[in-house]
Amino acid sequence: MSDLKGNCLVAQSGGPTAVINASVCGVIQEALAHREIEGIYGAYNGILGVLKEELLDLRAEDPEAVEMLKSTPSAALGSCRHKLKNLAESRRDYERVLEVFKAHNIRYFFYIGGNDSMDTAAKLKDLSAQLGYEMAVMGVPKTIDNDLAFTDHCPGYGSVAKYIAVSAMEAGRDTESLYTFDTCAVLETMGRNAGWITAAAALARRYEEDAPHLVYVPEVSFSREKFIEDVRAVHAKYGRCFIAASEGMRWDNGRYVTEDHSALAKDSFGHAQLGGVAQVLKHIIEKELGLKTRWMMQGLTQRNAMHFASRTDRDEAWLCGAEAVRQAVSGVSGFMVTLERAPHGPYRVQTGLAKLEDVANGEKKLPREWMNEQGNFPTAEFLDYARPLIEGEVELPMAGGLPMFMRFRKEWLVPKCQPYKVG
Amino acid sequence: MSDLKGNCLVAQSGGPTAVINASVCGVIQEALAHREIEGIYGAYNGILGVLKEELLDLRAEDPEAVEMLKSTPSAALGSCRHKLKNLAESRRDYERVLEVFKAHNIRYFFYIGGNDSMDTAAKLKDLSAQLGYEMAVMGVPKTIDNDLAFTDHCPGYGSVAKYIAVSAMEAGRDTESLYTFDTCAVLETMGRNAGWITAAAALARRYEEDAPHLVYVPEVSFSREKFIEDVRAVHAKYGRCFIAASEGMRWDNGRYVTEDHSALAKDSFGHAQLGGVAQVLKHIIEKELGLKTRWMMQGLTQRNAMHFASRTDRDEAWLCGAEAVRQAVSGVSGFMVTLERAPHGPYRVQTGLAKLEDVANGEKKLPREWMNEQGNFPTAEFLDYARPLIEGEVELPMAGGLPMFMRFRKEWLVPKCQPYKVG
Repeated sequence: MSDLKGNCLVAQSGGPTAVINASVCGVIQEALAHREIEGIYGAYNGILGVLKEELLDLRAEDPEAVEMLKSTPSAALGSCRHKLKNLAESRRDYERVLEVFKAHNIRYFFYIGGNDSMDTAAKLKDLSAQLGYEMAVMGVPKTIDNDLAFTDHCPGYGSVAKYIAVSAMEAGRDTESLYTFDTCAVLETMGRNAGWITAAAALARRYEEDAPHLVYVPEVSFSREKFIEDVRAVHAKYGRCFIAASEGMRWDNGRYVTEDHSALAKDSFGHAQLGGVAQVLKHIIEKELGLKTRWMMQGLTQRNAMHFASRTDRDEAWLCGAEAVRQAVSGVSGFMVTLERAPHGPYRVQTGLAKLEDVANGEKKLPREWMNEQGNFPTAEFLDYARPLIEGEVELPMAGGLPMFMRFRKEWLVPKCQPYKVG
Repeated sequence: MSDLKGNCLVAQSGGPTAVINASVCGVIQEALAHREIEGIYGAYNGILGVLKEELLDLRAEDPEAVEMLKSTPSAALGSCRHKLKNLAESRRDYERVLEVFKAHNIRYFFYIGGNDSMDTAAKLKDLSAQLGYEMAVMGVPKTIDNDLAFTDHCPGYGSVAKYIAVSAMEAGRDTESLYTFDTCAVLETMGRNAGWITAAAALARRYEEDAPHLVYVPEVSFSREKFIEDVRAVHAKYGRCFIAASEGMRWDNGRYVTEDHSALAKDSFGHAQLGGVAQVLKHIIEKELGLKTRWMMQGLTQRNAMHFASRTDRDEAWLCGAEAVRQAVSGVSGFMVTLERAPHGPYRVQTGLAKLEDVANGEKKLPREWMNEQGNFPTAEFLDYARPLIEGEVELPMAGGLPMFMRFRKEWLVPKCQPYKVG
């Protein structure tokens, strides 16, 4: 056990997820159980809230509101994309953070986020050690992209996977029922650099005829000619073709499918492309195969779909937050909580730890061998990996046919530092 | 009671909905209870299935599969967009339909669809009377667009309304949490000619700060200048702006916002517009106000979202199917079942009847007075109308974190007519 006593601060960073608030809930509910932790504070809009000294007293929140974090999507504390660089370049910001920490006697810092957040957390730990300010820094994993290294999977991924899968199932039935008319459809998913989300669409395919029939991810370079042949073959077999495609798909030359205007021009679209991957694929299919094609781009809804979140994901998000607190009060610092899957038998996870620096510098793409040889559908290995992550549903408090979400009151703690201009 | 005895046929038409199969289920389950009805058949892909004599024996289906129609989205019998015109122009088709009906002793025909389907049904009724073939023809209302006249609302609408509302809630929280960065968002909804679906996004707004802040429908012509002022004002007040916009929005000149390239060119987009309304609005906001804007276009998923369907909608869809059978066996023909809302007190509906011809020629747009004076948000009257329609959730059979949907076996009845070439 650590003798470190003081206040704790929790913050959220980067793109939100359906279950990132469950991690905040885990931090708060666990922190309440440890006498080492006195004040429980939240930073508003991530590290920006620290810089601006916009801190909330979470101990003063209604316990019911805290419990509702488990069923409220997106970042209830607010998030940000403000990125602290290395200590040399962003030293002023790092020192400001420590100034605010000292002023509020923050001795435990829990940062919920992805690589960049772990990088910031690692540097804060280093600087506090250099300056002789004793504090524990712990990372809590969060990303829909599932691309963090050293953890079997990331909280946030299971829920987006489940939503994308059910969307493919449902929209796939539309294409099936109208297959005398609109016979092709493209579902575009998030995932700028990794194909985990897109691959999850494949969970929808219980029977061969089910959607999706083709799945394209950034890890396999995209060939226009091969794509046309893929669609032609599927359509010949089933009379329809349902495609899941990642927004991050790239041509052989490494450029994004959505960015390479010259390639589009060759397709004689002629003009600057305003749309996304789904629209590009639609135009290729319609031009080359003459098949009417519908497209969908669910955008922000997919990463916040609490109404169909994975119970497994939600519970693991809570667990990671709570475990970060348990580790910190037991004297651990400088680590991110990870999820480790039991190597055999039914799905079970236990938590582990990975160094913040290691997570910051790592990235986990969809392994190429988890896509089939043709690069147009995930393998059984991927499906076995992903299936347990979407298990279970979250019961939501409902009113009038819609869920109830919570909001924190936005009453800052009394500032103790001078105002700070964020650069 | 009618003494008409024979077989019944049910068919689905037009764009599918989350609950159109519940109406088929209502027809089958009610038909099983009436000794006037012998064979219970389904036409595959709507009227096309009749023309091609692709008929299914629904009495032979597993009762559990029939029950699962209540939780399976899209048209399980298949749908089509094949439109029969007037009797003079499409007489060959109409006569073919009656030929198939006679061959299979179809004495009851239940057509689930919108205006066009009611028009086809009305003409079939006329022709059968002319030719002395005794049969009952009943319409069952179906459309996500909610634009059928003579009925308070349409089965299919409540479920898309609920899905769009929860999507606005959830994506709205994303914009809120990232409001230091991506401060505007546009959710594009279906509804080519009527704003009912888009207006339903407003159900998400329980508190003033909630999304959506602005709602644009086809019934109010779109002004670029007013739009810019609307967004500017909302953004000044809340620091963010979430917009719901119909795919069918039109400029003052009556042209679709997505079609009028000259108007876009004036915006200096310069080129042919590949995208939809959301992308047009995004570009206007970014160009004129410099605010980073996200957009979403959920497409086919919205009309098939059984995973978050309205229980009220689902139950009413079943009721309309069952009531069509009850009316037909009691001697009624040439009508569509309608839903009538109790004028006072808590929400209750009873069924009514409207002539097929009247429904065929009617269209019910969102009343202008159900949008505010500025034309950028629905009124309390609209919200009071829509709220009961999204009440309740549908319990789905689940496996592995995803719903189970049914499929009919595609084994046609033995044909009794010559093959027919569909023109």
